[in-house]
Parts: sequence; C-alpha cells; structure tokens
Amino acid sequence: MITNLLMIVQDSVAVADTIAAVVPEVVETVAVATDYSADITANLLTANNIWMMMATALVFIMHLGFAGVEAGFGQSKNTVNILFKNTLTPIIGILTYALVGFNLMYPGFDVPGWFGFAGFGLETSATADISAEYAGAGYTYWTDFLFQAMFAATAATIVSGAVAERVKLGAYLIFTLIFVGIVYPIIGSWKWGGGALDAMGFYDFAGSTLVHSVGGWGALAGIMIVGPRLGKYVDGKVIDKPGSSVPLAVIGVFLLWLGWFGFNGGSVLSADPGLVSFVLVTTSLAACAGGLGGFVTGYLVFKRLDLGMVLNGILAGLVGITAGADVIEPGNAIIVGIVAGILVVISAITLDKFKLDDVVGAVSVHLTCGIWGTLAVGIFSINADHTFMAQLKGVLICGAAAFICAFVIFYVLKLTIGIRVSEEHEKEGLDSHEHGIRGYTIIQE
Amino acid sequence: MITNLLMIVQDSVAVADTIAAVVPEVVETVAVATDYSADITANLLTANNIWMMMATALVFIMHLGFAGVEAGFGQSKNTVNILFKNTLTPIIGILTYALVGFNLMYPGFDVPGWFGFAGFGLETSATADISAEYAGAGYTYWTDFLFQAMFAATAATIVSGAVAERVKLGAYLIFTLIFVGIVYPIIGSWKWGGGALDAMGFYDFAGSTLVHSVGGWGALAGIMIVGPRLGKYVDGKVIDKPGSSVPLAVIGVFLLWLGWFGFNGGSVLSADPGLVSFVLVTTSLAACAGGLGGFVTGYLVFKRLDLGMVLNGILAGLVGITAGADVIEPGNAIIVGIVAGILVVISAITLDKFKLDDVVGAVSVHLTCGIWGTLAVGIFSINADHTFMAQLKGVLICGAAAFICAFVIFYVLKLTIGIRVSEEHEKEGLDSHEHGIRGYTIIQE
Amino acid sequence: MITNLLMIVQDSVAVADTIAAVVPEVVETVAVATDYSADITANLLTANNIWMMMATALVFIMHLGFAGVEAGFGQSKNTVNILFKNTLTPIIGILTYALVGFNLMYPGFDVPGWFGFAGFGLETSATADISAEYAGAGYTYWTDFLFQAMFAATAATIVSGAVAERVKLGAYLIFTLIFVGIVYPIIGSWKWGGGALDAMGFYDFAGSTLVHSVGGWGALAGIMIVGPRLGKYVDGKVIDKPGSSVPLAVIGVFLLWLGWFGFNGGSVLSADPGLVSFVLVTTSLAACAGGLGGFVTGYLVFKRLDLGMVLNGILAGLVGITAGADVIEPGNAIIVGIVAGILVVISAITLDKFKLDDVVGAVSVHLTCGIWGTLAVGIFSINADHTFMAQLKGVLICGAAAFICAFVIFYVLKLTIGIRVSEEHEKEGLDSHEHGIRGYTIIQE
Repeated sequence: MITNLLMIVQDSVAVADTIAAVVPEVVETVAVATDYSADITANLLTANNIWMMMATALVFIMHLGFAGVEAGFGQSKNTVNILFKNTLTPIIGILTYALVGFNLMYPGFDVPGWFGFAGFGLETSATADISAEYAGAGYTYWTDFLFQAMFAATAATIVSGAVAERVKLGAYLIFTLIFVGIVYPIIGSWKWGGGALDAMGFYDFAGSTLVHSVGGWGALAGIMIVGPRLGKYVDGKVIDKPGSSVPLAVIGVFLLWLGWFGFNGGSVLSADPGLVSFVLVTTSLAACAGGLGGFVTGYLVFKRLDLGMVLNGILAGLVGITAGADVIEPGNAIIVGIVAGILVVISAITLDKFKLDDVVGAVSVHLTCGIWGTLAVGIFSINADHTFMAQLKGVLICGAAAFICAFVIFYVLKLTIGIRVSEEHEKEGLDSHEHGIRGYTIIQE
Repeated sequence: MITNLLMIVQDSVAVADTIAAVVPEVVETVAVATDYSADITANLLTANNIWMMMATALVFIMHLGFAGVEAGFGQSKNTVNILFKNTLTPIIGILTYALVGFNLMYPGFDVPGWFGFAGFGLETSATADISAEYAGAGYTYWTDFLFQAMFAATAATIVSGAVAERVKLGAYLIFTLIFVGIVYPIIGSWKWGGGALDAMGFYDFAGSTLVHSVGGWGALAGIMIVGPRLGKYVDGKVIDKPGSSVPLAVIGVFLLWLGWFGFNGGSVLSADPGLVSFVLVTTSLAACAGGLGGFVTGYLVFKRLDLGMVLNGILAGLVGITAGADVIEPGNAIIVGIVAGILVVISAITLDKFKLDDVVGAVSVHLTCGIWGTLAVGIFSINADHTFMAQLKGVLICGAAAFICAFVIFYVLKLTIGIRVSEEHEKEGLDSHEHGIRGYTIIQE
Repeated sequence: MITNLLMIVQDSVAVADTIAAVVPEVVETVAVATDYSADITANLLTANNIWMMMATALVFIMHLGFAGVEAGFGQSKNTVNILFKNTLTPIIGILTYALVGFNLMYPGFDVPGWFGFAGFGLETSATADISAEYAGAGYTYWTDFLFQAMFAATAATIVSGAVAERVKLGAYLIFTLIFVGIVYPIIGSWKWGGGALDAMGFYDFAGSTLVHSVGGWGALAGIMIVGPRLGKYVDGKVIDKPGSSVPLAVIGVFLLWLGWFGFNGGSVLSADPGLVSFVLVTTSLAACAGGLGGFVTGYLVFKRLDLGMVLNGILAGLVGITAGADVIEPGNAIIVGIVAGILVVISAITLDKFKLDDVVGAVSVHLTCGIWGTLAVGIFSINADHTFMAQLKGVLICGAAAFICAFVIFYVLKLTIGIRVSEEHEKEGLDSHEHGIRGYTIIQE
C-alpha cells in the first residue's frame, strides 16, 4: 500500500511540476499572441496622418483663396500680373522650403536658441517616413514637410496682396525667395522649432504671429518702400480703385475660410478628436464674429453695406483666433473675432491716413489682427501658463525681426534692380506690358 | 520512509497550492495587460471624427456653392447684393445655431414630442468633448455642433436664391435669423432630435424634407409675398433675365455636388465604411441621373441645350436622393435622380405659369424634389419599416409648419419694415444703392 | 497516520488535477477575451476607406478644374458650350462606368489577358460592401467603384479641351460615351485589371499612360480630324485667341492640383502613411518644378511672363510624376517636373507648326508629358524591376490602341452625323446657336 501510495504521490508531484513548468510559458504565449499594441499604434498613426494630409490639402487651397481675393479686389488691368505672382508664390515657397526652409525651421536645437540648420534638401530615402523619430508623432516625415511647406508659402502671399498693382514682378519674386526660404523659417524656429521664444513661454498655436504677422510686417515694409499707387491719394482724399470681380474675391475668402479648417485644425499635429474639433469650432465662431464685426463697423463708419469689410472681417476673425484656437473657449472666441472685425476696419482707415496703400487690406488683416490674436491668448487662454507679457514679448521680437528683414530686402532691391514699374506701365496696367494677355476678354455683341 | 514520503507529499501539496493561488492572478494580469478595448474604441472615434470633420468642411463649402449659383444666375447689377446675403447667411446661421438652434434641435426629449430646449449657448468646457454621452458616438460634442450648424445655415440659403434681386437685405437677414435660429431646429427636432415624427416612423436620412423642403417652403412663401421682379412677366410672356456669369453658376453647382459628399456622407454620423461609401455611390448616381433628366427634358421642352436645366437637374437629383441615400439601391437611385431631373423642369415651368418668380429655381430644386425624394423612400427603401404613408405624413406636417412660419415671418416683415426695395432701386440694381460697389469692373481698352 | 497521509495525498492530487483541467480553459478564455484582431482590421479598413473616399471627392473636383481651365482659356463666345461639355462629361462618364466600364476594367482575369467582362451594372445589394473579397482591401466595393468612375471620366475630359470651340456637341457626347464606357476601361484592364501589360512588367502608378496619354491620344485624333479653328493659322502665323477669363483658368489649375492629391494619393489604394505622404510630396514637388520649367521656358521662347505656360507647366509636372509618384525620389521628382515643364512648351509650339489646333494645350500636357512620365519610371524608379523597355512597350501598345480607337470613332462620326459646326455657327460662337444664353452678361452703366 505504501508503495502504491508512493506512486500516487510521485504522480501528483510530477503533475504539479509539469504545471508549474508550463504556466509561465502559457502566460508568455497568451501575452504575445494578444499583444496588439504595435497594430494599435500603427492604426492611430494612419488615422492621424490622414487628417494631417487633408489639412495639408486644405492649406494648399488657401493659395487659390489668396489668388481669388487679390485678383478680385485688384483692378482688371492688373489681373494677370496678380495671378502670376500668386501662382508662382507656392511654387517658389514649396521648392525653397524643400531646399533650405524645412531644415532651418526644425533644426533640432540641442539647447533652445536662435539659429540652427540641419542641412540642404529632404531625406532621400522613402523609408525615412516612419523612422524611429516619427513613430510617436501623428504623421510621417513627408506629411510633416508638406504641411509646413504649405504654411511657409502663405507668409509671402500675404505680402503679395499689399504691394500689388505697382511692384515689379522680378523684385517680388526675389523677395519671396529670401523671405520664405530664410526669414520665415528662422523666425518660426524660435517657437515651433523649440527655440528661444518657446523657452520664454510664448504661445502661438497656429501662427497669428509666426505666419500672419510675419507676413503682415513684410507687407507693411513693402508698401512703405514701394509707395502708394498713382492716383490713390489725391488732395487728401482716398480714391477707391474698383476691383475686377467681387465674386472672385468672395470665392477667395470662402476658400481661405475652408483652408483654415486645415491651417488651425492641422496645427494640432494629430487627429485628436476633442482638441481638433474644439479648434474647428473656435475657428468658425471667430470667423463668423469677425464678419459680423466688420459688417457693423463698416456700416457705422461708411453708412453702407460694405461687403469688403464683411469679407476682411471674416479673415480678421480667422487670423485673430489662430494663436489661441486651442485654448480659448467658444464664447471668448466670439469676442476675439468681433474685436478683430472692428480692428480691421479701423486699421484700414488708419493706414489710408498715413498714405500706406494696401490693395487688399493685407496689413490690417494679417498684421493688426495677428498681433491682436497673439495678445488675446494672454487675456483669454484657459492655460494659466500663458501670460500677456510673454505674448507681448513674442510679438515684439518677431515683429522687429520680420519688419527689419523685409525692409532691408525691399530697400536693397529698390536700390539695385528697382521695385516699382514705370509710371506709364502702371497707368496702362501691368498685364499688357509684361504678360501680353488680358485677365478678361468678354465680347458681347 | 514514511517521514520522507510525508515531506514529499507536503512539498507536492505546497506546489499545488502555490499554483492554485497564482493562476487567477496570472489570468488577471494577462487580461489586463492585453485589454486593448479602450484603445480600439479611441482609434475608432478618431477615425469616425476625422470623417465627420471633413464632412463638416464639405458642407461648409456648400455655402460658397450657393453663392456661386445665385450670383451666377442673378443679373450683374445685383451681384454684390446676392453675395452679401450669401456671405452673411452662414455667419448668422452658425452664430444663431450656437446661441439657441443646437439646443432646440437636440433637446434630448424624455418622451417623443414637439418641443424642447436645453438652454442657451454651447458647453463652455473644452473637456466636454469626449464626455460620457459622446463616448459611443462617431464624433465629439464639438464636431456634432459644427456639422449641424453648417446644415442649419443651408436652409436659409435656399430662400435667399429665390427672393434675390428685389428683397430688402434687412428683411432677409431678420427672416434668416428667425428661420435658422428657431423654425428649422424645432422642425428638425421632430425627427432628428427623436421627437414625434421619429416615433411615427417617418424617415429622412439627410434632409430632403427637414433641410431642403423646409428651405423650399420658406422660398415659396417668400416669392409669394415679395412678388415677381419687375418686367419678369409681361403680356403673359416670361422674360428671361440673363445671369451675370454662367461659369460662376457651374462652379457653384460643382461645389454643391462636392459638398453633398459631406452632406449625405456625413449624415451616416460615423465613417462606417460600407454604409458611407454606399451613400456616396447612390448620391453620385442620382446627381448624374438628375443632370441627364434635366438635359433631356430641357431639350424636349425648350428645343435647346439648356445648361441651366442640366445644372438644376444635378441639384434636383442630389436633393431627391437625400432622404433615402442609405436605403435606396443604386439602380433605383438612378430612377430617383431621373425623375427629379424631369420634375425640376416641369416645376419651373409651372411656377412661371403662376407668376411665381424664383431667380435660381430654388423652389423647384429644393421643395419639389425634396418632397419627391422623401416620398421615394416610401417606394424604394430596402427597409420594410419605411412606408409611403409615414413619408407623406412627414412631408405634410413639416411642410405645413415651415410654410406657415415662413409666411407669417415674411408677412409681418412686409407690414412693418417692408420686404421689397423701391422700384427705382430694383431697376438700377441693388449694388449701386446699398453697397456702393459693382460686382464686376472689367475695363477693356 | 497513513490514512491521514493518504487523504492529504488524494487532496493534493485532486487539486493538481483540477488545475490541470482548468489551465487550458483559462488560456482559451484569456485568448478569446483579448482577440482584437477583427476590431483592429475593421479600424484599419475604416481609416483606409476614409482616405479613399476623400481621394474620390478630390478626383471629382478635378472635373470642375477641367471646366475652369477650358472655359477660362476658351473664347467668351463659346463659354456655355464648353461648360455644357464639361458638365455632361462626368455625368456620362460615371453612369457609363456603372453600366459597363467598371466590369470591363476589373473583370478578374483568370489568366493575364486583353479582354474580360464581368457583366452589366453594379452589385445590387448594399451588403456587398464588405464582402469577403474586399475584407483585405483598403476600401469597400462602393468606394472602389466610385474612385475608379471619377478617374474614368477624366480621360474624356482631356479630349474636350482640345477640340473645343468647333466640335459638334452631339458628336462629342457620343465619342465620350464610347471612349469612357469601352475604350478606356479595356486599356486600363491590361495593367490595373491584372491583364497582359501587368504581366509584361509595365508600371503605371496612377495613370500617366492609362489615363492621361490615353486621353491625350484621343485629343490628338480629335484635333486631327476636326481641324483647326477658323482664323487660327493665317499666312503661316499662329493667331492667339484670347481666353474669356484668366482667373477662371487659374481656379481650374489650382483645383486640378488639389485634385491630384486624391488622384495620386488615392492610387496607393490605402492610407498607408509613409507611402501616401511620400506620393503627395513627389507630386507637389513635380507640380512646382513643372510650373518653374514652363515659366523659364516660356520666358526664353516668348520673351514674356507667360502665365499660360506656368499653368500648363504645373499640369505637365503633375501628369509627368503620375506614373512614378511612389517610386521616384523627391530630387528626381523635381527633375521629372522641370523636364515636363520644358516639354509642354516645346510640344505646344510643335503642334502649332503642324497646324494642330489644341485650345487648351491638352495634347501637350496629357500626351507629351504622359509619355515622358511613363518613360521616366524606367529611368528614375527605385524599384529595379521597372525597366525602360517595359515602359516603352506599354506606352506604344496603349498609345496605338487609344489613338486608333479614337481616330476610328471620330472618323465614323465625321462621315455620319458630322463632327464640326457650320462656319457661320463657329464665327458667331456656339453659345448663341445651341444654348440660347451667353457665358457672361455683365452690364456696366
């Protein structure tokens, strides 16, 4: 019986040992078989990247929006010239950004700083797209480049609208090359590249300052140096120069509004559902409020239903909310927009007082409201780290840099190749001279 | 030996006990370590929300589409006035919807009903976006609001096109404020807010009735009260008033078609791959068939290749399929579209018989085809729960409500501030009087 | 004591047995409870399908882009006629593709071949969308159809621009019906349907050959048979015919560029983050480089800032990169684009030498640069399997097939119903005769 018992016991021990040996292996097997974390991360990357690519497409279409606004508000004798500038701007902007801009803007500072450069050109290997450094990001290397490149080109486009109808095309193109290729990315690196302004606590979500006011300062420098159009200021009066096509300007503004879904929505840099949709709501409300502000102010000031002020009011609201679209609550976004819509009218009147001739109101929309929006973060942000003083510092530093650079570039161009077309050329219109075609040829027998 | 045996046994028991104690813990550990359900739900929310945000952007661009159609088909002397209305419509629509509309339309009825109101304004906290009630939905609170707000504003835009060229701008804006802010959301709540029509078995996928025919009834009330344009009906003849720009109207129609990808595709309220793509196919086929129907009918009736009838045929097909885009098979979607394309021509001719002057054919497109599309669900739906009688009831109830409300609003406006511009003003065009600029200023020496 | 011992041992054995019995079940339970693979696959399908639906919408808007380019570059007396063609093209294209094209293009060859047909019409059941055969794909059955249908219609649109201003509308519509419904899908099946060209190692990522040069060959056949416009070639000189609206052409080109995000980006057939974003970068860089190439070549040749050449250069770069957008590195994409931008100017001049009158430069953009882009894959592809000879073979085979078919169709139409309007009709413009309205009616007192 004892022998029998011994056998049973030994069996029992053997079973227990077997189980003990097997359990960790089983646990391991189950864990491995059900480790979906890589798939889940990949799915999230796919979704985030879709949003960022769509945002890129939306920002791209803003270039058509700018073209519409500028050609619509510009005189019909200069339509082709304006469209020529607006077509070449993204071309130069994107190519330049590929060559140097991207690596100037995101140099990867070891310590926060003012300048860095990661070398010419893009990665050459298609496999760089999901390299280790991008694994945690909401997009690939290529999406990152293209989204930022579309942004970069907008800064030059802002200048284009202000100096239209009298600037020499060659001079404008050289300005664009330098401004988009070098000035914009270096200033951008101070905040978005993790540079010195970032360390100071400056906040600019999607670029009220880094894109819009930088472009706006460039526009201001441009109109100061190139001077007003002939016949714009006569005997102390401001002479309206009727635009070629109001529908074209409206198309432009709606496309810009649409593009802002990507401009602000994409600046979340992922498809985070709550944050991106919150940003779209504040952006849309500020646009509406800006249009309303421009409408009412335009009516009070000019005693007419001024569509131009409604349209610029919409753009003003959009520029205004851009710095804080992710940190300003909907009600306050409406306030930011209304104030922007009022400011854009006052700014336009003030510029005219100083005989600063801005064809489409670019300085008022992008500079005035870019500054307002950046400061508004210091007032309304739900993030207590954002202070008015840090915002003001950022505005001043970026403003000084952008204005001085733009002024120097334009001034050197004026002294060398000249930046203004001849008087005869300006009177007859730029299209017939340089382009050999007219913007509209509508024959109605 | 027995002592020895006892030790072995005790060891054995101890091992077994240890294992027994450990196993549940191991199971628990494995289960927790591999519980990806929250991540998977979050990923799905991200993807669904991307689609809904893109759908929102697409519906937004429909406002530019409406502006293009109306300014293109309207006379050049009224272009700015038309664009002014169309620019202010989404502004007023979105702001009003934020203030009251959203909470009127989705009040959260405890029992199915006819009226509810969840209070003024939006949630103020950005963290409300993924609150418990939205966890299972295909989008966030903010996406929900913005998508619905873009929809709401379209109902007023429909009216705008019909009454153009002679309506007082102030009267139109006040009408829009009330119609979009109060009438549209209350009617919408009866079905989409889970109200009484929903309980009756009425089906309206994306709004053939709730959006398009509601807007269409408003348009009909408007043109009845404001009367035809001067010189439109002379000695029993219908006088064509040539539109300012056919290309602009074409741009408008294509943008509306594009926007319908979001209007119908987004009405799935998620990115469900099969259902959304099915909806896009039925929508596109109906649009094509509508254009074809308008083309052929226009040719038979007018003996010319009438681009206006092709364009309105496309819109008719789109409106027609909107009520049942998710429950009508592709072949039947083509039938729905062709019938809509035929109806839109017949309707336009009939309205002219009654001297009901509709500048862009808004009543024919949105009301006639909205009714047809809603009834078509009762005929073609693959869902046996959808009956013709329930559809008819919904059409009548919504129609009565929308028409009576619109009629009363316009009538009160007529009695008070007036809804029609002066005869002189209408003849000279609305642009020069109220807006001080012209739509087109094209100088061709 | 032994009895006692025996009880302990039996307990021990029982515990061990219980555990042994339970462990597999526990493992099973854990595995089942944590098997998320179906959810993860579903999420990926949802994301991929979103991208493919957006790509479909983007390709759709290319039809508006073509309409803009053609109506903008065409004379104002033919604007309505051009827009009529461009509006009916997607209508006919999509309906025809639903009826026969889709099942001609993707017949599911058992062995690689030259012809197959899977029967008339689409699946009738909405549940076919995620059937077994589509489970592994990046999109549903419906998305597949609609994306391909949008592609198909572009091939006919290319022809439309070349033969504009003198072709009979009826003849063009019949041509479109046959070309889109039968010729295009059969040629497409040779590569994308897994037919004979696929087996030969021919590569055409998104259709430099299968879409663009096929359309371009059709355009060439068309302008050969229909002949040049009256007054285009006089005494050995080429007479410019000013287009109605340069802004409209610019809108068209930008919308085409935007649409190419979907045309090329969607041709990945999934939302693969690295590959799609890589494709968007090569596409955008080639577009920019093409515009630059057209700008510089236009300036050298014509001594003016020729916006038409910049615009066609952009399109040339886009067509050029289309065959290899996924296998050509960014630096080489810029080379492909610049060469395309140069070629498009040379090609336009050469066609004029042969009195081949192409209103919008469609042959130069789509045929010349389509061939160049296809061959460029043989030169620059990072995939060693792609050879110049295989590319050349594909170009020749598809070219011969497309040109012969188009030539025969147009020739038979010429012999039967006629393909050219009367001389009087052409001189007065097509709009007043056939359409009864004008493109623009702009009254400026």
